[in-house]
Amino acid sequence: MKKINQVIAGIKPLNEKTMAEAKMRQDSLTKPQGSLGQLESLSIHVAGIKGDPRPRIVHKVIFTLAGDHGVAKEGVSAYPSEVTPQMVYNFLQGGAGINVLSRHVGARVVVADIGVAADLERHPNLKNKKVALGTKNMAQGPAMSREEAVRSIEAGIELVEEELARGIDILGTGDMGIGNTTPSSAITAAITGVDAALVTGRGTGLGDEELKRKAAVIEKAIAINRPDSKDAIDILSKVGGFEIGGIAGVILAGASNRIPVVIDGFISGAAALIASSLAPQVKSYLIASHQSVERGHRIVLEHLGLKPLLNLDLRLGEGTGAALGIGLVEASLKILDEMATFGEAGVSEKT
Amino acid sequence: MKKINQVIAGIKPLNEKTMAEAKMRQDSLTKPQGSLGQLESLSIHVAGIKGDPRPRIVHKVIFTLAGDHGVAKEGVSAYPSEVTPQMVYNFLQGGAGINVLSRHVGARVVVADIGVAADLERHPNLKNKKVALGTKNMAQGPAMSREEAVRSIEAGIELVEEELARGIDILGTGDMGIGNTTPSSAITAAITGVDAALVTGRGTGLGDEELKRKAAVIEKAIAINRPDSKDAIDILSKVGGFEIGGIAGVILAGASNRIPVVIDGFISGAAALIASSLAPQVKSYLIASHQSVERGHRIVLEHLGLKPLLNLDLRLGEGTGAALGIGLVEASLKILDEMATFGEAGVSEKT
Repeated sequence: MKKINQVIAGIKPLNEKTMAEAKMRQDSLTKPQGSLGQLESLSIHVAGIKGDPRPRIVHKVIFTLAGDHGVAKEGVSAYPSEVTPQMVYNFLQGGAGINVLSRHVGARVVVADIGVAADLERHPNLKNKKVALGTKNMAQGPAMSREEAVRSIEAGIELVEEELARGIDILGTGDMGIGNTTPSSAITAAITGVDAALVTGRGTGLGDEELKRKAAVIEKAIAINRPDSKDAIDILSKVGGFEIGGIAGVILAGASNRIPVVIDGFISGAAALIASSLAPQVKSYLIASHQSVERGHRIVLEHLGLKPLLNLDLRLGEGTGAALGIGLVEASLKILDEMATFGEAGVSEKT
Repeated sequence: MKKINQVIAGIKPLNEKTMAEAKMRQDSLTKPQGSLGQLESLSIHVAGIKGDPRPRIVHKVIFTLAGDHGVAKEGVSAYPSEVTPQMVYNFLQGGAGINVLSRHVGARVVVADIGVAADLERHPNLKNKKVALGTKNMAQGPAMSREEAVRSIEAGIELVEEELARGIDILGTGDMGIGNTTPSSAITAAITGVDAALVTGRGTGLGDEELKRKAAVIEKAIAINRPDSKDAIDILSKVGGFEIGGIAGVILAGASNRIPVVIDGFISGAAALIASSLAPQVKSYLIASHQSVERGHRIVLEHLGLKPLLNLDLRLGEGTGAALGIGLVEASLKILDEMATFGEAGVSEKT
């Protein structure tokens, strides 16, 4: 926990001076003030995160963390758990959605095994941060020990720290884990206080009956484990997942290094709830890439006070929405940096 | 009008066979079916437009058309008309928002003078399609003659035809013209039947009093000119603008060449109303890039039956939203083309 506390202590407020400078520059560019809407506010936000009035991003990194879930045994997912390791290999071969969209926006993907329930073959692009061979079934007891929860967050921190040498100007979060909307719903219910049924969605494609069963499993897990709503580590250990803890660590480490953190959908949102419960100041570093179809995500974003950039009915995870979001952040920073001012272009200002 | 009718006759239905093939491929890719939401439907749509089950786009073109408006004399804009030619020079120098965002998505910008109220210096990258030195004041009579309206649409068609040799795999529409939300509102009111006041917005930044005056000017223009709601050329000539007619021509020519047409905001939307009034089948070729802040735009998109890809509070025009939209279309096509199938990746399917 010492490492986590050190990282949290390193998360500072946004730089108001560079934000004011960025705002002044936006207002001097050859367009009506405010006419690029969220692109303008986004660029000013990033100027405050990076402490740079005209930031540019070159090194874009998506962290895609994979883990398995004992609760999958309860029939909460439309896919079998074997898909988790299969998809990890797909990531490493470049054939998954996250690979395609990362190439599109010029990001590199860091793939990490943080708790897949299979011994994965070694691969030069696979980070081994395995905490355990999947979580235990949270419908019967805690998903993991408190030590494992701490270890999963620390593993996420390490992932970011190990990549700093290669450069990270912006990062996106992503997940892979059959069954992981179930712990995400449980975490959302535990932290926001909203009923489990209201934050439980269809995941990869459940029918009506399966959805009811899933909500009942989540309610049971909460009733059995009684997570302490004020203790994020307790929540993570009782009803969480390794990749969720890992993403929380990625978020904390990003913020402490003044890196804009573009969060993906519902699973990343649950991780952001854990991170912001540990360190409320982390919220200033978060950019919500999109509004997921998954039911609980709206409640997560409202709780975090974030407005999503995109609403394209995505529900894949992996960091796919985050990749698209990074493309929009980059566009906003190019606007701030590359557009001519009224003075430079000889354009008349507002009458 | 002969040229316009020829182009309209060339607009064919979408290719249902290639759409079915694209849908089948989307459903075989390593993700839960439908989990990439609008990106999936977008790729299938483009497959139908291009008659290709796995289309790729290389040549991306934004057409930014500039024109002036006699009605600007009525004080309907926060900026003086001299800004229109100044911004054209800014486009040619690469310093405007559209230049930045086009570079970001890898598109080239075709800038055309279709009715700027100034003699512009010649420039290798400026297309001269000037119909007249701005429209007349529509609050006192028709904005242009019927012949000029036809000529503006033909000029837009020519712009696309002249660029075909350099390659156009997808196009975006854009506008520049101080005062042009006023004719756009008038066109929207005339075609949709919605009250002028309900489709009149703040444009580049009007206050409350100026907004009321603008709505009154639009109501007066409609009352004086009495545009025939069934005759798009009549509407364009009485309460339109040259760049609006030109964009309508770009849209028609794009559709007749089976090019996906990504429309920008409110002005492009008004042009799409003109184009779809002339040729309802053109709607199948339209992709709405974003939901503008400008009040009437929502009504335009509803009338056209289009769902916007983005909602970032943009209101700049120039094609800026279209450029971002093209980036998303390209992402959707890469997903369709580059992702591995379940079979290729050895991933188990839904249980």
